[in-house]
Amino acid sequence: MSTRSSIPIADPNLLDQPAREQIRLETVLHAFADPVRMGIVRDLAVGRSDMSCISFHLPVSKSTATHHFRVLREAGVISQHKRGTARVSRLRYEDLDALFPGLLDSVIHGDRAQRARDLA
Amino acid sequence: MSTRSSIPIADPNLLDQPAREQIRLETVLHAFADPVRMGIVRDLAVGRSDMSCISFHLPVSKSTATHHFRVLREAGVISQHKRGTARVSRLRYEDLDALFPGLLDSVIHGDRAQRARDLA
Repeated sequence: MSTRSSIPIADPNLLDQPAREQIRLETVLHAFADPVRMGIVRDLAVGRSDMSCISFHLPVSKSTATHHFRVLREAGVISQHKRGTARVSRLRYEDLDALFPGLLDSVIHGDRAQRARDLA
Repeated sequence: MSTRSSIPIADPNLLDQPAREQIRLETVLHAFADPVRMGIVRDLAVGRSDMSCISFHLPVSKSTATHHFRVLREAGVISQHKRGTARVSRLRYEDLDALFPGLLDSVIHGDRAQRARDLA
């Protein structure tokens, strides 16, 4: 995306991300529409806590994983902070639920149901 | 998609579509993640009735529109019937809501909110 948020209080450790009002439905849906990215969202949704990138077990190379984290961040689905040499991610649950009520929950529940069917 | 549904009662006018259990979340989300396709879903959601393809007012060529209808149909988002020389579309609301409860509603409401913000 070419436009970036103006962070009210500059946080040098926060990676560039769209402000809430810049988040767009089609970009969020595109970000969800990938199994690896959905896996990241799924892991972050458990406990809704911050997670370091290295604590995800993703079936892709490090550079591919970095790409997927960036797609999620630029879509407004996650925030990423630098903490030392690590990047820590969290879901932007409040922002997404304010813009698109129920969407993130229904996607997470739909993903869970899909996985249960795949294993059946 | 390479797999097709086996329609219990063969309907020669029904275009190929995945059976309910073949519909996948990532494919549905990808189908939603396009403004033209979201416009088709929006129009079909109003009144939830059948609509002939020519009754949509889409900002794209006929062949591009046909492509978007096919993406929606192959994802399991819409059904299409041949009626004479026309193709009539409808949302697969029950199938989607059975698989991914609340997803279609939250996407439709999110789209409405997005458009209201765009016009503000």
